[in-house]
Amino acid sequence: MSRNKTVKKSSAAPGAAKATGKAQGKKSANGKLYAAILAGGIGSRFWPLSRETTPKQLLKVVGDESLLTSTIKRLSPLVPSDRVVIVTNAKQAEIIRMHLSGGDDKATSPGYVIEPAGRNTAAAIALAAFDLYRKDPEAVMAVLPADHVIEDGRPFRAALKAAVKAAADGHLVTFGIVPDRPETGYGYIKASVRQFIDIDGFGVRKVERFVEKPDIKRATQYLKQGGYYWNSGIFIWKAARILEEIKRYLPDTFASIERCATPEELAVAYDGIKDISIDHGILEKAKDVVVIPASFPWSDMGTWSSFGEILKPDSDGNIVKGRVVDIGSKNSVIFGSDRVVATIGLRDMIIVDTPDATLVCPRERAQEVKEVVGVLKKKGYIEHQEHRTVERPWGTYTVLENGDGYKIKKIRVEPGKRLSLQMHHYRSEHWVVIAGAARVQRGEEIVDIALNQSTYIPRGVRHRLENPWKVPLEIIEVQNGERVVEEDIVRFEDDFNRK
Amino acid sequence: MSRNKTVKKSSAAPGAAKATGKAQGKKSANGKLYAAILAGGIGSRFWPLSRETTPKQLLKVVGDESLLTSTIKRLSPLVPSDRVVIVTNAKQAEIIRMHLSGGDDKATSPGYVIEPAGRNTAAAIALAAFDLYRKDPEAVMAVLPADHVIEDGRPFRAALKAAVKAAADGHLVTFGIVPDRPETGYGYIKASVRQFIDIDGFGVRKVERFVEKPDIKRATQYLKQGGYYWNSGIFIWKAARILEEIKRYLPDTFASIERCATPEELAVAYDGIKDISIDHGILEKAKDVVVIPASFPWSDMGTWSSFGEILKPDSDGNIVKGRVVDIGSKNSVIFGSDRVVATIGLRDMIIVDTPDATLVCPRERAQEVKEVVGVLKKKGYIEHQEHRTVERPWGTYTVLENGDGYKIKKIRVEPGKRLSLQMHHYRSEHWVVIAGAARVQRGEEIVDIALNQSTYIPRGVRHRLENPWKVPLEIIEVQNGERVVEEDIVRFEDDFNRK
Repeated sequence: MSRNKTVKKSSAAPGAAKATGKAQGKKSANGKLYAAILAGGIGSRFWPLSRETTPKQLLKVVGDESLLTSTIKRLSPLVPSDRVVIVTNAKQAEIIRMHLSGGDDKATSPGYVIEPAGRNTAAAIALAAFDLYRKDPEAVMAVLPADHVIEDGRPFRAALKAAVKAAADGHLVTFGIVPDRPETGYGYIKASVRQFIDIDGFGVRKVERFVEKPDIKRATQYLKQGGYYWNSGIFIWKAARILEEIKRYLPDTFASIERCATPEELAVAYDGIKDISIDHGILEKAKDVVVIPASFPWSDMGTWSSFGEILKPDSDGNIVKGRVVDIGSKNSVIFGSDRVVATIGLRDMIIVDTPDATLVCPRERAQEVKEVVGVLKKKGYIEHQEHRTVERPWGTYTVLENGDGYKIKKIRVEPGKRLSLQMHHYRSEHWVVIAGAARVQRGEEIVDIALNQSTYIPRGVRHRLENPWKVPLEIIEVQNGERVVEEDIVRFEDDFNRK
Repeated sequence: MSRNKTVKKSSAAPGAAKATGKAQGKKSANGKLYAAILAGGIGSRFWPLSRETTPKQLLKVVGDESLLTSTIKRLSPLVPSDRVVIVTNAKQAEIIRMHLSGGDDKATSPGYVIEPAGRNTAAAIALAAFDLYRKDPEAVMAVLPADHVIEDGRPFRAALKAAVKAAADGHLVTFGIVPDRPETGYGYIKASVRQFIDIDGFGVRKVERFVEKPDIKRATQYLKQGGYYWNSGIFIWKAARILEEIKRYLPDTFASIERCATPEELAVAYDGIKDISIDHGILEKAKDVVVIPASFPWSDMGTWSSFGEILKPDSDGNIVKGRVVDIGSKNSVIFGSDRVVATIGLRDMIIVDTPDATLVCPRERAQEVKEVVGVLKKKGYIEHQEHRTVERPWGTYTVLENGDGYKIKKIRVEPGKRLSLQMHHYRSEHWVVIAGAARVQRGEEIVDIALNQSTYIPRGVRHRLENPWKVPLEIIEVQNGERVVEEDIVRFEDDFNRK
């Protein structure tokens, strides 16, 4: 039951661009709105919270929901999740699907457009546009990064509605955030002085040009002068229209994707595809690019320092979470976990502590966290890949200790869930119940194990752990064996269709 | 088999001071050398490495031995351990005894002088002097802090030999370290310009005065001027001589201690004893105080910043230990553990990471770590009391997780050792062997449990864990119960005489 949507060649649309040429104009104003959420990155500047298996868009940065879940929910009054596609690679799609399936909310069940590799936003958007166009030649698509923070959904949706109207008229619409400070961390969109059109009270303007991240002097000037907006990376257009522009300005990208009928062909074609952003590749050149100035609070959460934009600092300018003991720090971001973090007299620092790794760096060097992740990779450290606690569709597991020939895990199974029916070649497992109760299949036998009871799964024996009851089950698992690695698993049956 | 030495009133010495008056002079040159090691403090400036149960003197700051073990071993060619007493409180004596008994080296088995409370160095030294004087009226005693770093023992012992000769002649001898930098972290001893006497090539001088920690200007002046030495806190004198001075300048302290025959009486008497250092209380007033200038490398390891004095920084001025990933830091102390610590662009910072707590502070504020410990206490956090890994005479245990109604421990039992025969009222225990093999007494039954085997100890059942073999035993213990606290233990038999 895979919901992966890769490119399928539709006989009904042999030349998308040709079709789109005609599709322009009032006639298409009723095109349905779809969303393509770009979720291919790891967001390694958010290490140690972000990991390969917990990319930034899955972090619960504000409140109880991940950035991705918030992005989907924010859209949902206008775009039901069956009209949402997530554009990402196969590995991340697996992780994201697991993440979204964890909740009981059926609203968060989008489709997937699988990129064989990361090739920047132009390629990702082209792939999504083909996918949507082939499903619905009249499709209007909103393109949104998965990892931005927009706390209030209502002004966002109001602007989106206006954007859809402009897009239905054939415009390529960008969202420009009205700046409230001379920010040097964002690119800007310079709009024409004269208003182009009024839609629902939004003064839509022609885009004059896209501006790279400015220095503080120029950013201050932009703010004073007006007509400059932060480039939010959110775009709205008809799928047919953007394909038309891609065919014009990136004809190789267009042709490479258009001719592929299978994921295998796409993987080969993608290899040669141009690595360029949609801004540079298309929008800076295309005519008819407009901006909708929007003034809702927005942050692209570029680095740890961005928390200052979305969380209110205390009277010393600090943003503090967790078991932190501080003496006299100022303007610092101090994120602890269950461990104690003690700080004294910090100035403009970032401290992020997780169960297996701690980051300490000045705010002004927060960009370099990405380089730390590079060093971790080179050193072969696993702390850039996985957290100690790993999400699974049935619950979570936490590695308490990883030793020579043994591994200790705490496993939590949510009510009504069960792990796959599985077997290990190289390890045996001792299970002790520390909360709730377990139903255990061991070979042919099925037994219920209560709190403070234990069982033993010898190497090579098929087994399954289940929590058929109403409270969470927690067990301690002691693995023994010559190899104690996640890869040593043979799945015979799985509620979550994992191999 | 307690080796605690508290004050016993010796009928042979009803008035120590009277006796000591006569003991002065050449006649006593053959007095045996004893050592009183002051080990009452926690060294909370070294949190998170130091804890209540792992005071600073038990840390392995340099090399593989604790500061205390090094202090004892450094003395041993001149002072065998049966002539060493450790002055500390009862709780720490227990911890220190456990620490010293861990090794097989019988040389490190000192006696103990138990203080009922901490009352600064004058009281501690008075108590030790009474103890030694009553054992040996001719005793020469060296007083040494337990937590100083002196890497080469030979020049130290050469100076000590000279000091003993001066002490035998009735002088109150201090060790002054010849300064090699304008240090503002130490008190100074100002010596008389004229050499007083030459002993074994050491130019012993009269002390003119004791100087409090100077500012940098005065410290620079002292260094230039000469005749100023760092006050090492190491003193050598006849027990009788210092008692004589204590009787003169702190008569209440003298009388309070002299009249006590039992630990209970001492506890009451100590309550009213003056909280004053030996420097302020005696040495600044007494005549005949001399200094032996010594030039061996020495550090009192006052704060984390002191590591710069004893470990060689790398070319960026950093002192780095553990799994640290650094980008461009300078002049910083970065001590990691098994966890990853990533640092970017630090300047003059201290980062100390332990499995359950992390400290981040500028070097110049290292003194304030003590205040952090105060806050932890006030908040009721346990991270100032214990490490996750706790030393026991039979090995160690590490708390892997401490949850609601359960606790997970990794227990390591050294070859040939066993835990006490014990019982718990409130918890049962599951044991799984992950290394070596265990001999388990469970009720009346004794069974051997091999690698990857497990056993279960129900609540209320007497049990004992033993490692009679030649390789270390490691087990995972899962405790379940309504109370999972260390205090829930009834000991029936113990190889280490614990209650």
